[in-house]
This record gives sequence, C-alpha cells and structure tokens, in this order.
Amino acid sequence: MRRILALTGGVGGAKLALGLAHRLAPEEVLFAVNTGDDFTHLGFEICPDLDTLTYTLSGLSNPELGWGRVDETWNFLDALGALGGDTWFRLGDRDLALHARRTALLAAGASRTAVTETITQALGIRHRLVPMSDDPVRTIVHTADGAMAFQHYFVRERCAPVVTGFEFAGAEQARPNPVIMAWLTTASAVVICPSNPFVSVDPLLALPGLKAAIRASGIPVVAVSPIVGGQALKGPTAKMMQELGVPSSAAEVAAHYDDLLTGFVLDHADAALHERLPVATTVTGTVMLSFADRVSLADSVLDFVDHLSAAG
Amino acid sequence: MRRILALTGGVGGAKLALGLAHRLAPEEVLFAVNTGDDFTHLGFEICPDLDTLTYTLSGLSNPELGWGRVDETWNFLDALGALGGDTWFRLGDRDLALHARRTALLAAGASRTAVTETITQALGIRHRLVPMSDDPVRTIVHTADGAMAFQHYFVRERCAPVVTGFEFAGAEQARPNPVIMAWLTTASAVVICPSNPFVSVDPLLALPGLKAAIRASGIPVVAVSPIVGGQALKGPTAKMMQELGVPSSAAEVAAHYDDLLTGFVLDHADAALHERLPVATTVTGTVMLSFADRVSLADSVLDFVDHLSAAG
Repeated sequence: MRRILALTGGVGGAKLALGLAHRLAPEEVLFAVNTGDDFTHLGFEICPDLDTLTYTLSGLSNPELGWGRVDETWNFLDALGALGGDTWFRLGDRDLALHARRTALLAAGASRTAVTETITQALGIRHRLVPMSDDPVRTIVHTADGAMAFQHYFVRERCAPVVTGFEFAGAEQARPNPVIMAWLTTASAVVICPSNPFVSVDPLLALPGLKAAIRASGIPVVAVSPIVGGQALKGPTAKMMQELGVPSSAAEVAAHYDDLLTGFVLDHADAALHERLPVATTVTGTVMLSFADRVSLADSVLDFVDHLSAAG
Repeated sequence: MRRILALTGGVGGAKLALGLAHRLAPEEVLFAVNTGDDFTHLGFEICPDLDTLTYTLSGLSNPELGWGRVDETWNFLDALGALGGDTWFRLGDRDLALHARRTALLAAGASRTAVTETITQALGIRHRLVPMSDDPVRTIVHTADGAMAFQHYFVRERCAPVVTGFEFAGAEQARPNPVIMAWLTTASAVVICPSNPFVSVDPLLALPGLKAAIRASGIPVVAVSPIVGGQALKGPTAKMMQELGVPSSAAEVAAHYDDLLTGFVLDHADAALHERLPVATTVTGTVMLSFADRVSLADSVLDFVDHLSAAG
C-alpha cells in the first residue's frame, strides 16, 4: 500500500490533489496544506488554501472563477459595499458560511486540525487534509512598495508590487502538525504538488523539523513543476522568479528544492531539460485542464514514485 | 418647532417611528433605541432593534417577513446549516453585511453611536437614531426553564418558556447616551412607542438618570399602547403579562409606566377605558397595517402631545 504525503498550496496543488484522491484510498494519502496565506478579515478566520482543497475535494469548487465555491451569490458583498465596507476580498454568500463555521469552532476552542476535520467531513470528503500547523504562520511578502500580508499582496494588490523576498512570520515557533509528523514515520513517498515554491511550499518546509524528517525518512521526494515552458500555469510564480532575478524555468524550481528532491516531474514542453537536471526526472503532461488531466498526472506521479522506490 | 424624544424597541415601535419620520424634520425627533436585545452571534455584533429601525426608516425592511431586510436571500445560512453551524437566528445574506460592517467598525474602536450614524447615513436615513447607551446592557429573561439571553428566549425558544421576570444586566453601570440626555434639555415631549414595555422600553428606563431627567423636564410623556383589545399586535407582550399575573390590558400598560406618563394613546377597541385611566387619554386607530396607518397614528400622537403641551 502506498502512503503518500502530499504538500500543497491552493489552486494548482488542489488539481493534482483531486487526481491523487481519485486514485488513492483515504489511508493512502495525507494532504498537508499551507496555512501561511491564512488571515483574519471582517472578523472571519480565512484559510484560502485549506478552503480551495476543501471545495476541490468535495466537488464544490467554482469552475468559472477558478476559486471559491460553485453556485455562488454575492449579496453579502454587494450590501457590504453599499455600507462602505471592504470588498477587495471577494467573499461569496455560501463561501462565507465556511469561514463563519471555522471562526465559531476556533472561538469555541477547537484546533485548526479539528476544525478542518469537522468541515471536510460535513462536506463528505473522505480523504484527510490537515493544516501544516495548528500554530499561526503568516507569509509576509517583501516588495518594492514595502512588506505586506500575503492576501494583501495577492488579492488586494493583484500581485502588482515587485517582490524582493518572503518571510514566514511565526514559522520558527510553529510546530509542524503532529498528524503530518506521524504520517511521515510510515510514509512511502512525499509529493510536492505544482504549487508556488516560494509562498505555497516554502512555508511548509520552514516549519522546524519537517524538512529534516523528510530527509531522514529516506523515501522518494517528488515535485511537480508549477512552471511549464517558462510560464506559471496559475498565479505569480514566474513573475516572482523574474523579480527575484532567477530565470523562470522548471530547472530553477528543481534547483530551489535542492537536495530535498529525489525526483522531478516535467511537462512535455520542458522535455529538453530531461537529462540536464541533477535529479531523476520524468516527462508527462502537467497541464491539468480537465478532470481526466488531473487523474492522468496523478497516475504519472504515482508511477514515477513507484519507479524511484523500486530503484532506491 | 417640536422636539420629540421617541423611545422605541423593534417592530411595533419602528412602525410609529416611520410615521413620525414622515411628519417630522430630522431636527424635530430623536429616536432612542433599546439595545438590551443586542447580542454577539457567530462573531457578529447584532443590534436587532437598531437594525429594525434602520431597515424601516431606509425603506429596506422586509414586508413579507415583518423583520430583516427586503429582497433577502439565505445562501449563507443554508450553507452554514450544511456545515453543522447554528441556524436558529435567521441571518440573511444582505442583512449579514450590516452586522459585519458594524462589527468591523466597533473592532476599529468606533462607538455604537458612531457606528449607527455611519450605517444610517450610508443607507440615506436623514433622521437620527441612537442606541440607548454606548455601554452594554443585556436583557435576561427569567423563566420557568431558567434564565436566558433575550434572543435565546425570543428567537431560539420562540417565547415558549413561562416568564417570571426580567433583568437588565449592566444597566446600573451603563451611561444613558449623552445624545439623548442633551436632546432632553430642549425636548418638547417624550413619546413611548408601542413597544413591549418589559423588554423594549424598560431597559431604556433602567438607565441611571434617564427616568429622572424625563420627569425633571416637565414635558408631556405620552405612551402608545402596544396592547389592543387585550392582545399584543406583535410579539409576546400579552403572553408575558399573563405569565406575570397581570391582566393583558391597555390599562395595565399605562399602570406599568405609572406616574412617568402624562398621556396614553388607546385604540378604538379600548375606547371603554377612555375615562377610567388616571392619565389623560386619547382614542385613535393604533393598528398600523399600512403606511397611511403609520402616518395617521403619528398625526394623532402629535396632536395629542400638542394638546397636552397647551394644557400644561
């Protein structure tokens, strides 16, 4: 039986997560989700990446928007705007319920892990997803316009400011989720989903002890490139790399993860890199437009992991 | 020029308030609103009576429901219920925006008076309504089933428990809104709207100094009976009176306000009481089904006040 630890951020990672969840039983995969994007807004505790995974795995994600919940309405936000309230973070009426439920459960003393379990079970999700930590970690984006909280950079400023660096406030004091650490003791492989390495995966890897535990496990660690043909499929990854003075290429993503990786998954568009990276690579279709694409990439990743396990 | 201080609770009081606002200029009336019903729910600061006045005076009240906001949708609440959240307090999607806006402004340090002004102005209300106090007062209903917060009694338990008494927690330490006290120094009359005397008006009268200031002013104090023909037009007033061992009659409402009153407004159904009360009375139609009814009652009340002023 496989025991996959999947590290993931939001939209890009969630697509592969859906494919993996389609192929793997709940006891075969644990989704460890970035919470560096979390923030408190209008009194709500909002966890964008956990929410994206939740909506994706429950079949409730909004296919038109690419974020948020399906069949959404915006009457709350329209009325809030008329009252002079902040509307830069687009909270749909139904989506708001998830944040309200989480906020109420947290206020009642539940951990983020317990809240995530309550919510995912209520929505019929059989697979387990957990926040990377029950302690707060806040991604700060340093930019030419000053430091800003991640959602301010990402949503309010629409990623326009030029990035100069990142900071994961609280990460040094945060404890990796014990569920993740326990899973690692019997895991067969780690899969780093095609999420932004800087703001979706690095917050996880910044948690004290997690990287060391992954290394110590000796199991295959496979990342799927979020960069295809020099472009990010979604979000600001390529833009960030250029602003940081790094070529926006899949090779640079592999280099970013450095010696943590034992395998790297490239898109056909980057097949030329196949023999030129210092880790084992496989080439497949990583652009996930359809559900079939998600399952197909999951199959390729699992085959690659099996191959590396057999080789190791 | 008239200077009316109108003391009011929610639905019944709001109907007369709308009539008064139609007849009086903003500088001629101040609406002092009960906040004993206020509570915190799902992290929102909710002020039911202020909200009812706000929706009524802005033309946004829901005519079908008799509470809440017009053109309402319930997607938030439906989604919250699916997640196992509390749905006993019916928060509509648009209504929720008002609570969110208030909560955010309060969290930013604004007073309830300032928040009410911001919200009412945003909705185009020209007349001034103010919370009875910027300090918290919480109406507790003592019942045969134990003590409970007002909204729990009123909404969650649908007024079913047998009432044994009331408590206005915090009232002794609360300061009457300075706006109300200042208005009283130049007021020409006090109008007690047809609200529940026990849970809508008594919390106001329990504020230290307010009753004494009204008495000291020497101006007419006129109450409109919320009981017509022995029945409450809205809400649990009659039921409460019976449970407290008091006949549910307009005469008992007048007796409840005791020597604070100089005048009492009866419905035609209670015309027989006209000569039998210890205060001046007038008989008119107090059942406000239409907008015209609201304006007509306001006219009757203002005429009565003018008559008492001239007599005094």
